[in-house]
Amino acid sequence: MSSSNPLRDAADRRLPRIAGPSGLVIFGVTGDLSRKKLMPAVYDLANRGLLPPGFSLVGFARREWEHEDFAQEVHEAVKEHARTPFREEVWQQLIQGMRFVQGTFDDDDAFVRLRQTIEELDQAQGTGGNFAFYLSVPPSAFPVVIRQLKKHGLADQTKDSWRRAVIEKPFGHDLKSAEELNGLVHEVFAPDQVFRIDHYLGKETVQNILALRFANQMFEPIWNRSFVDHVQITMAEDIGIGGRAGYYDGIGAARDVIQNHLLQLLALTAMEEPSSFDADALAAEKTKVLGAVRLPKDLGRDTVRAQYSAGWQGGAKVIGYLEEEGIDQESGTDTYAAIKVGIDNRRWAGVPFYLRTGKRLGRRVTEIAVVFQRAPHSPFDTTATEELGSNAIVIRVQPDEGITVRFGSKVPGTSMEIRDVSMDFAYGESFTESSPEAYERLILDVLLGDSNLFPRTEEVELSWKILDPIEEYWDTHGRPAQYPAGTWGPAEADEMLERDGRSWRRP
Amino acid sequence: MSSSNPLRDAADRRLPRIAGPSGLVIFGVTGDLSRKKLMPAVYDLANRGLLPPGFSLVGFARREWEHEDFAQEVHEAVKEHARTPFREEVWQQLIQGMRFVQGTFDDDDAFVRLRQTIEELDQAQGTGGNFAFYLSVPPSAFPVVIRQLKKHGLADQTKDSWRRAVIEKPFGHDLKSAEELNGLVHEVFAPDQVFRIDHYLGKETVQNILALRFANQMFEPIWNRSFVDHVQITMAEDIGIGGRAGYYDGIGAARDVIQNHLLQLLALTAMEEPSSFDADALAAEKTKVLGAVRLPKDLGRDTVRAQYSAGWQGGAKVIGYLEEEGIDQESGTDTYAAIKVGIDNRRWAGVPFYLRTGKRLGRRVTEIAVVFQRAPHSPFDTTATEELGSNAIVIRVQPDEGITVRFGSKVPGTSMEIRDVSMDFAYGESFTESSPEAYERLILDVLLGDSNLFPRTEEVELSWKILDPIEEYWDTHGRPAQYPAGTWGPAEADEMLERDGRSWRRP
Repeated sequence: MSSSNPLRDAADRRLPRIAGPSGLVIFGVTGDLSRKKLMPAVYDLANRGLLPPGFSLVGFARREWEHEDFAQEVHEAVKEHARTPFREEVWQQLIQGMRFVQGTFDDDDAFVRLRQTIEELDQAQGTGGNFAFYLSVPPSAFPVVIRQLKKHGLADQTKDSWRRAVIEKPFGHDLKSAEELNGLVHEVFAPDQVFRIDHYLGKETVQNILALRFANQMFEPIWNRSFVDHVQITMAEDIGIGGRAGYYDGIGAARDVIQNHLLQLLALTAMEEPSSFDADALAAEKTKVLGAVRLPKDLGRDTVRAQYSAGWQGGAKVIGYLEEEGIDQESGTDTYAAIKVGIDNRRWAGVPFYLRTGKRLGRRVTEIAVVFQRAPHSPFDTTATEELGSNAIVIRVQPDEGITVRFGSKVPGTSMEIRDVSMDFAYGESFTESSPEAYERLILDVLLGDSNLFPRTEEVELSWKILDPIEEYWDTHGRPAQYPAGTWGPAEADEMLERDGRSWRRP
Repeated sequence: MSSSNPLRDAADRRLPRIAGPSGLVIFGVTGDLSRKKLMPAVYDLANRGLLPPGFSLVGFARREWEHEDFAQEVHEAVKEHARTPFREEVWQQLIQGMRFVQGTFDDDDAFVRLRQTIEELDQAQGTGGNFAFYLSVPPSAFPVVIRQLKKHGLADQTKDSWRRAVIEKPFGHDLKSAEELNGLVHEVFAPDQVFRIDHYLGKETVQNILALRFANQMFEPIWNRSFVDHVQITMAEDIGIGGRAGYYDGIGAARDVIQNHLLQLLALTAMEEPSSFDADALAAEKTKVLGAVRLPKDLGRDTVRAQYSAGWQGGAKVIGYLEEEGIDQESGTDTYAAIKVGIDNRRWAGVPFYLRTGKRLGRRVTEIAVVFQRAPHSPFDTTATEELGSNAIVIRVQPDEGITVRFGSKVPGTSMEIRDVSMDFAYGESFTESSPEAYERLILDVLLGDSNLFPRTEEVELSWKILDPIEEYWDTHGRPAQYPAGTWGPAEADEMLERDGRSWRRP
């Protein structure tokens, strides 16, 4: 692929982050994630010229496929879901390195065939022994796959070749199970071989939190308790649980979203400046701030969990959580969770961080809102400024990625009346480069061995340490509150902020 | 006029700033300013319901007009230049109070007739003896008009009625002449009777500087030497001197613009927060900061003045300043002036303020740019961020009034490359209320006796104190530099900033 490839990001001229000889093995390749995200991401990376010519893709699944069936499957996934245009010559090159290995996870013969396939690819495609194993499998299958990789020597690196494991959430469902899982993984893989995917961290806007804070001079001076009143981190979904009843029930919103995505967003928003953007330096700061998170004393007062009841969404009547297929009528699983935490350090002492997530809310939106204190004194007539809110910097993670700054401005034609106005920065309007999908970025990082954007063992365990007491409290204190589908959550969540003299944003 | 008048600013509900019984006398009513700005502003105020029913407008000029001729003249000016739609019922009410007094400024009989006219209006229109005298006259006519007002008792207030004088710039052409003029004015009028018009201060965006700084929490903490690198204040015109040769030659850009508009913008940008928006409190802060302005030691190095030479503008060839009709071939008048000043106080020590103005520049624009220091440390790869500029908050005074914030953002798809992007707030898009013309605001303020937006004696004299040494230096050090019409000024001005490691914005 020539370096004048028009699909290469213009700015990549400067930093050609192109993967070296390597291949990717996907376990659970017939699943949704693989078809909708992983296969298209591999194609998009190839199309952008960021994969080496001999790059290889190996599918592993129970299905009775030949290599050609697998290639056909990838072809369809790419046609349907790839971000960049389909180009036959890219496809023809990619298909050279595609293989399928049939088998179940406990089938030793299959893993022998996998090993042979990798060795064959090293010969035919020049992958050089460098392979990443993507575990796109249910949590229950984690241990067996990890053990098989070890047993068949697939995790063994040499001086000249690497092996890496890519793990999808959930990283356990509480601290104990996370520690067990991490223990197992680290029996087989060294810490720098393990890449935990939190796809939120692959999003441009999330990485831009760091750029915004540390590449500029005007935000960091006010990014602390002297000026910030509170922070709200929201991930709202408009969809229900869909076909995920089996996975979701018993897990719930807090484990599914707060433990990983929202606490990672909190870490990036609140952490101290690392001295470099090196993976270790970044992980150290994230770990430090997650370790400083303090739970509220009264968990009944400062946490809320709820389930959606029947309601309206997008003009259609939708059923409640307990009526969804496959959900136990008595289920206590939270489809909405809101928690308030503090951060025990000099920068943030006394500043509450409110985290919330839910399904079947008003609309799909993820954002971080840093809300500032009102000006300590106003020289203007107070009657003229009663509508004045607080300044806020809102990082819009999705959709419509960008930044909004809310501030007070004079209303034209009056003495000195101030009203809140906004200014916007939209990623899509400001850059001609289109944003890569999170999975493109993250798969490329795995192949490059760049672990900046992957949460580490300590971060995962600290996050469970934060969540565990809340889950235990909920388990032993009654049932979830209710909120009608299509609304912004239960009244209890509004009351939680009202007691603090604040209110949730309606994004 | 009913209070449900749809042309009233919506927000005026809250603060009905409606003038009480009063009238306005315009000296020099046949001039351009009167026809294009003052008469239309009076109509617009009436149309917005902000003038009392009996409001009266008296024209004074040499021309042989009857009242009807004057009314006809106002009618035409309003039809052509008013901001709000023409409404016959408003016009019919306004015309009841229109009078014309014919005479020259040294004609005692004319001033007797003016006095009689005012007394007649008090009877017929209920103006209650409250009159403002708007001196829209050449500087040479100031003294005689002021003295006539005194001689004929027109400046005399009673317990129940007020008299005010409205003065247009120039307020002298150096400190000495300004002091003489102020001395004369204050022989006749008390300080609170005098309203000096700097129409820039009537602009919404200029008043919004105060709202931006003091009604918000996020700007003031970084509005100082710890974070600001420098400030640029620009007023650029694309036009030449047009028919103003007689006025302009011998005055020049620095006296015409820097002494009043730009130093007032500097004062609002740099002053400390007043404890209230009361006129005295505001004037005290402006006076304090103007008094702290420090001139550069080397005026040859840190000031530049120039004249436009022939060039191109808007696709047409235009002549140079010395070729303009009525300009002396040897004229040393500046059509471009740039100066660097410091402010000797704790907030601004060491932060240069660069002020520039010129005719026949690239385009018409007035703006204040607060340019921040680069971030003191970047955790990102320096090779990836070499294009990074400085953060800036730009207050766009005209045209396209609003605010732009420039900051660094991550470029999509790369490791961590940062590029400068902007976010905008546009006055016109954010408020349904249309912005009143500066003269509407200022005339209403005169009638209300609200002097917040009018520079005081001390401010005018301090501004001359800043400018005088520069003008003296220029008078005794060679001739102005040259710049081709349609460019952004002389090379000398670019070099002036380059020596400081900075550059002018190209707005």
